[in-house]
Amino acid sequence: MTAALLTDKYELTMLAAALRDGSAERRTTFEVFARRLPEGRRYGVVAGTGRFLEALGDFIFDDEALAPLRSFLDESTLDYLRDFRFTGDVDGYAEGELYFPGSPILSVTGTFAECVLLETLALSIFNHDTAIASAAARMVSVAAGRTLIEMGSRRTHEQAAVAAARAAYIAGFAGTSNLEANHRYGIPAMGTSAHAFTMLHTTSDGPDEKAAFRAQVDALGVGTTLLVDTYDVTAGVANAIEVAGTSLGAVRIDSGDLGVLARRVRAQLDDLGATGTEIVVSGDLDEFSIAALRADPVNTYGVGTSVVTGSGAPTASMVYKLVEVDGLPVQKRSSRKESHGGRKAALRLSRPTGTITEEVIHPVAAPPEVTEPARVLTVPLVRDGEPLAAADLTAARELVVRGLRSLPWEGLALSQGEPAIPTRQVPVRSR
Amino acid sequence: MTAALLTDKYELTMLAAALRDGSAERRTTFEVFARRLPEGRRYGVVAGTGRFLEALGDFIFDDEALAPLRSFLDESTLDYLRDFRFTGDVDGYAEGELYFPGSPILSVTGTFAECVLLETLALSIFNHDTAIASAAARMVSVAAGRTLIEMGSRRTHEQAAVAAARAAYIAGFAGTSNLEANHRYGIPAMGTSAHAFTMLHTTSDGPDEKAAFRAQVDALGVGTTLLVDTYDVTAGVANAIEVAGTSLGAVRIDSGDLGVLARRVRAQLDDLGATGTEIVVSGDLDEFSIAALRADPVNTYGVGTSVVTGSGAPTASMVYKLVEVDGLPVQKRSSRKESHGGRKAALRLSRPTGTITEEVIHPVAAPPEVTEPARVLTVPLVRDGEPLAAADLTAARELVVRGLRSLPWEGLALSQGEPAIPTRQVPVRSR
Repeated sequence: MTAALLTDKYELTMLAAALRDGSAERRTTFEVFARRLPEGRRYGVVAGTGRFLEALGDFIFDDEALAPLRSFLDESTLDYLRDFRFTGDVDGYAEGELYFPGSPILSVTGTFAECVLLETLALSIFNHDTAIASAAARMVSVAAGRTLIEMGSRRTHEQAAVAAARAAYIAGFAGTSNLEANHRYGIPAMGTSAHAFTMLHTTSDGPDEKAAFRAQVDALGVGTTLLVDTYDVTAGVANAIEVAGTSLGAVRIDSGDLGVLARRVRAQLDDLGATGTEIVVSGDLDEFSIAALRADPVNTYGVGTSVVTGSGAPTASMVYKLVEVDGLPVQKRSSRKESHGGRKAALRLSRPTGTITEEVIHPVAAPPEVTEPARVLTVPLVRDGEPLAAADLTAARELVVRGLRSLPWEGLALSQGEPAIPTRQVPVRSR
Repeated sequence: MTAALLTDKYELTMLAAALRDGSAERRTTFEVFARRLPEGRRYGVVAGTGRFLEALGDFIFDDEALAPLRSFLDESTLDYLRDFRFTGDVDGYAEGELYFPGSPILSVTGTFAECVLLETLALSIFNHDTAIASAAARMVSVAAGRTLIEMGSRRTHEQAAVAAARAAYIAGFAGTSNLEANHRYGIPAMGTSAHAFTMLHTTSDGPDEKAAFRAQVDALGVGTTLLVDTYDVTAGVANAIEVAGTSLGAVRIDSGDLGVLARRVRAQLDDLGATGTEIVVSGDLDEFSIAALRADPVNTYGVGTSVVTGSGAPTASMVYKLVEVDGLPVQKRSSRKESHGGRKAALRLSRPTGTITEEVIHPVAAPPEVTEPARVLTVPLVRDGEPLAAADLTAARELVVRGLRSLPWEGLALSQGEPAIPTRQVPVRSR
């Protein structure tokens, strides 16, 4: 299916107007950036780059896509669209890179016509995926090496769920419950069991939790995770070990005071000799409750709603702004929405220890001289319409690990604060 | 493309276990409901019903869908899936109906096997679409008859954007910027212009707003909407009328103090003789800022981020719970997550004036006797796997209008409060 109609109508009416007066062929650069991080956040994690590069290839106007456009576009615009393929260049931050206010995470260069058409799709992808990855990275950071599973598919749009699983995986989650994400992106699929399965084993004599556990172990082996809180947690754990034996993979607790229950269940499991049986907790977890469980004997966190909704920040506030026309920097002057004109690139400075200190955004042709260790953040992604590399989730995950490690300690705090490092804009030289 | 992999892995492992011990064939009812409304909200609007019924037909396991399942499912489970088609019954609230805590908005009856498979997809659709429609209805209500356009595609996942446009339209928005929503659902597509288009008309002599306006009017006619805040609003309005004449359709203001600017622009337009030129405002609008603009001369609100992210509540907290097995009511007893067993239906009571007073949720076989005017909320949606009617967006929009009209006055307040009416659960008769 073409992605071309996943677009705002005005992109196409602007195209029609620009084709008519000739300005459609002007050489432009558009930039994707966020003016600010979500309130109180100290860093963000770029995600969506790989999906955007894939979507570029699907952004074609076939007959099905053109049909509904006939009602409001003239023939020459339809002709343009029929032949459309993006032929420009894209530069930007690698997927998994940290970002801060103003970071030029994507820079799209080509004719106005081809760049303007990509606005809505680019923003949809980056705003969604970056919001999820940014929230997920905070959870990964406070989980301090414990396993996180993304299981929020049911809390978000069914296709957004697939992208959310991908973004959470980039941020460091170990896997997802979502099968399509497993199929499409190779992300490890994980799962336990639901209360419904236990309750299904109800007869006129009442609930029969052991029958449910037995059925699950028979089908999935003792390495499975049994859900022990459908009726009574203590009885559930006893039933689980009675049925599965002390080699049971894990038990899951999905309700109640998770810290208290985890300690009690750990003691019970150990008493029963199931010292290797792990504890999975779930139920409205977010980065704050994960942090609060740090001292408790939890092996794995199952995270749903909070990760797929960006934990309070479901969109990353990215914008797609025209910054250069035929080599001239341009910028808007309406109140409180200043943008910085000119095509830009960025460096990140650090101390010799590796702790980052500042992000420097500069005109692409004029990198500043710096004395500190500096890393170039802007890399080429597309040349003449062709992506230079396929998306690499492993590389993106590694970048997140390195990014989190590079933050000053206060940058990892969960509390509301300022961005972890300042962003400096090197002004465009006036002509 | 099949929807079957838009599913959590555990639905399939539970299926495998249930097939193995024979419980898969037990007759079950699952219910979709929300334990609570988003914090402080007084009502919700059901949306997603039509999308869910459509998705039912796409929920098949073709060879592509089966391939990734081979790694963890046995042959007999794969055989079951190969032949799978939902053959059960679905009842529920019509799309566009109001709902309150506990409202059984969907009730799915069939074998455990066929019902459990639908859990993730059903919840994804209802949690997303209902969240958007519920936020959008508050905006519609405070806009008090003025036009609302959904233009938030760029702030949410690209496919979620299409569903969001649909949900906002159900709630009473007049249209959307999203072309795919127009194509797929026939929702009116609307659009204005972007700052980039104005800035594109920059030359070495500087910006040329009039050239941009002229190009737009030439291509789209004087009925178009010109964006007047790229540089200076007063100059922008003057340029707009100079180029388009006093028959200009509308001007859009996208930044600054929208109330102040709207009043100033209205006066300026009237002075220029453009008394019929309308004013469109946009820029981080939500229900509160729409309400605050009530006294200002605004014709149309363009709403983006807040509507597609549910204005603070991006998911509706709907759950899908097993409530009945082979005629036996079942319920979970873990802490603070009580559910009410048994298959249920609902009535909404009202005063003779039409103002609603209470929602009564009762065992499906035992409707209570009531003396007040009552409306049956639970209607048949699917019989033997076949949807009884196609989705009807016009009917859903009409239901929202009637629903909002039926609320007690305090139910329409934007401030945080209790649900507008209480929900009463008629207990399952004990056996």
